Amino acid sequence: IVFGTVSAKAQTDPLPSWNDGVPKKAIIELVGRVTKEGGPDFVPVPERIATFDNDGTLWCEQPFYVQMAFAFDRVKVMAPQHPEWKTKQPFKALLQGDVKTAATAGEKGLLAVIAATHSGMTVSQFEQEVRDWIKVARHPRFKRPYNELIYQPMVEVLNYLRANGFKTFIVSGGGVDFMRPWAPASYGIPPEQIVGSSGVIEFRLGKNGKPELFKTPKVQFIDDGPGKPVGISMSIGRQPIIAFGNSDGDLQMLQYTTAGSGVRLGLYVHHDDAEREYAYDRKSQIGRLDKGLDAAAKNGWPLISMKSDWKVIFPFEVK
Amino acid sequence: IVFGTVSAKAQTDPLPSWNDGVPKKAIIELVGRVTKEGGPDFVPVPERIATFDNDGTLWCEQPFYVQMAFAFDRVKVMAPQHPEWKTKQPFKALLQGDVKTAATAGEKGLLAVIAATHSGMTVSQFEQEVRDWIKVARHPRFKRPYNELIYQPMVEVLNYLRANGFKTFIVSGGGVDFMRPWAPASYGIPPEQIVGSSGVIEFRLGKNGKPELFKTPKVQFIDDGPGKPVGISMSIGRQPIIAFGNSDGDLQMLQYTTAGSGVRLGLYVHHDDAEREYAYDRKSQIGRLDKGLDAAAKNGWPLISMKSDWKVIFPFEVK
Ligand SMILES: [Ca+2]
Ligand SMILES: [Ca+2]
Repeated sequence: IVFGTVSAKAQTDPLPSWNDGVPKKAIIELVGRVTKEGGPDFVPVPERIATFDNDGTLWCEQPFYVQMAFAFDRVKVMAPQHPEWKTKQPFKALLQGDVKTAATAGEKGLLAVIAATHSGMTVSQFEQEVRDWIKVARHPRFKRPYNELIYQPMVEVLNYLRANGFKTFIVSGGGVDFMRPWAPASYGIPPEQIVGSSGVIEFRLGKNGKPELFKTPKVQFIDDGPGKPVGISMSIGRQPIIAFGNSDGDLQMLQYTTAGSGVRLGLYVHHDDAEREYAYDRKSQIGRLDKGLDAAAKNGWPLISMKSDWKVIFPFEVK
Repeated sequence: IVFGTVSAKAQTDPLPSWNDGVPKKAIIELVGRVTKEGGPDFVPVPERIATFDNDGTLWCEQPFYVQMAFAFDRVKVMAPQHPEWKTKQPFKALLQGDVKTAATAGEKGLLAVIAATHSGMTVSQFEQEVRDWIKVARHPRFKRPYNELIYQPMVEVLNYLRANGFKTFIVSGGGVDFMRPWAPASYGIPPEQIVGSSGVIEFRLGKNGKPELFKTPKVQFIDDGPGKPVGISMSIGRQPIIAFGNSDGDLQMLQYTTAGSGVRLGLYVHHDDAEREYAYDRKSQIGRLDKGLDAAAKNGWPLISMKSDWKVIFPFEVK
C-alpha cells in the first residue's frame, strides 16, 4: 500500500485543527510516553485519566455562562407562578430583560436565581427542561445553539486521548444535571463521567408510590476551585494524568494533576481571540484567569492560544 | 471442533456456582432480553448499568461490618495519640477489647469511632492504611483475609454482566475510600465505578506547596437507604437496569431500579445459611432485611437463597 506524503500526513495527524505549537507537541509527547509499553513513563490503561473543565475549556462561556442564560430564561417561564418576582431583585430586572442590573445583585443574587430555577422538580423533569431549552436557545452573538459552540480542537483532543486508552471526564463548576442532557452527544463523554456541582436531592415516593428524585434548593457540593480535586477524589478516585482548564477555578485541579508521580500535564486554554471568539483573562468577571496565568508561567504549564494554536474554533467551521 | 455434551454445558454456563433456581433464571432471562438486538426489550450498551450493594451482597458483613473491624483496630493503633480515650466510651471499651460494651454506645457512638479513625490524614494516607490493614486482618470465624470472603456466585454475576456490555458499579453505604484500595482487584470494578459514603475532604497545599486532600470528620454524603438512588443519580446519572442488595438499606435502590421503563430487575441476597455463612434477616442489627423482605414478596423481586441457590459461597471453595 502506498500513501501520498500529504494525505498520509493529514491522515495520521491526530489533532488536525491544531497548529504545530508548544501545546500540541506537549499533548502528543505525553501520549507517546504514557502509551509506550516497557518505557519509563508507561501508564496502564485503567490509570489513564484525563479531566476537562467545561465552560471556556470545551465550549464558549461568554458573554455569560450558558447555565446562567438557561436560568434567566427559566425565570421568564416560571414568573407566572412567582408574582413576588415582580418586585424582587434580581428577578425583577431579569423579567425586564435587564441583565446588567440583575448582575449588580452579585454572586448571592445569581445563586438565588440558580436555586429558584434549579429546584422544585424531579431530576428527570429538570433534565427534560434542559433538553428542550438547548434545542431552541441561541447564542446572542453567534446565533447558534449553544451546543454547536463547542471547541473543535478540544473535541479532537478528547477523541485522541480516548483512542489512546484514556478515560475522559468533565470536571466542571457547572451543575451536573445541567450538563448530562447534552454533553454526552457533544463530547462522547457518558453521564457517569461527568463530575459537577450539585444540589441536595431528596428521594420521595410520589403518586402511585412511584419513586422520584426531587431537587431541593440546598447546595450539596460545589465542584469549583479547591472543590475540583475534591470532586475528582470523590467521583474518580484517581489522580489525572492530564487536565485542561481555562480559569482560576481550575488552578487546584492543575496543581493536583501535575503533582502526581511520573509524567503529568496541565494546560490552560487562553482566550486571546476577540475576532473569532472572545479575548479575556485577568480582569474578566466570567472565566477569570489571573492567578492561573502566573501559576502556568511558574510551573511551565502550556498556554493554549486560541488565536495561534487553533486553526478553527467551532465544528461548523470545518469543511 | 467437537464438544462433549457435559463439558459444553459446563463451558457455556455463565453462572456455574448457581443452582438452577428462580434468581439464576431471572438474571439470565434479563440479560437475554436486553441484549437481543431488534427485540422489544433491547437496551443499548451505554445504558446497561448494574449496581451492587457491597456489605452482605458482595462480601461477608457478619459478625460486624468489615469497616467497623478496621475502625476498631485503628482505635488501638491511634490510642497513644489519644489519652482521653482511656476514659471515654466507646473508645475505652474498644481498647479493652470489649466490643459488646462498645456496641451499647449505639449508632452515635459508632459514628464517633468512624469520625475519629477516618479523619486527620490525607486520602492517600488513609488508603494506604486500609491497604496495609486488609493484608493482615483476619475474619474471626473464617480466619481469612476479609477480601477472600467475597461471594463467588456474585463475582460470576459481575463477570457475566460485564461480558454482556453492562457497566458494573458498587453502590454501598460503606466509605468510598475504604473500598477503593481493595475492591477493584476483588470485583473487577474500577475506583471510578465505586459509589459510597464520604466525609468532607479539604484541598490544602502542604509542605513544599504540594497539594493534598485532607479528610475531615464532617459528613459529606451518606450513601444508604434513600441516599442510594440519590448517589446513583449524582454519580452515575442513569437508572440501573439491574440492582442487587441484601438489606433494608437497599430498598430504595431496588424501588428506583425496578420503577424504570422497560425490563428491570431487583434482587435480594437472603442470608439463610448459618452453616456455610450466617443466617439473619428481620431482626439482625447488621444488614437487617425486614421491610425489604415484604417489598420483595409484594413486587416479585427474586430472593437469592444462599443455602439453596449457591453451590459455593467463597472463591476458596472452588476447586
Ligand atoms: Ca472554565
Ligand atoms: Ca448490605
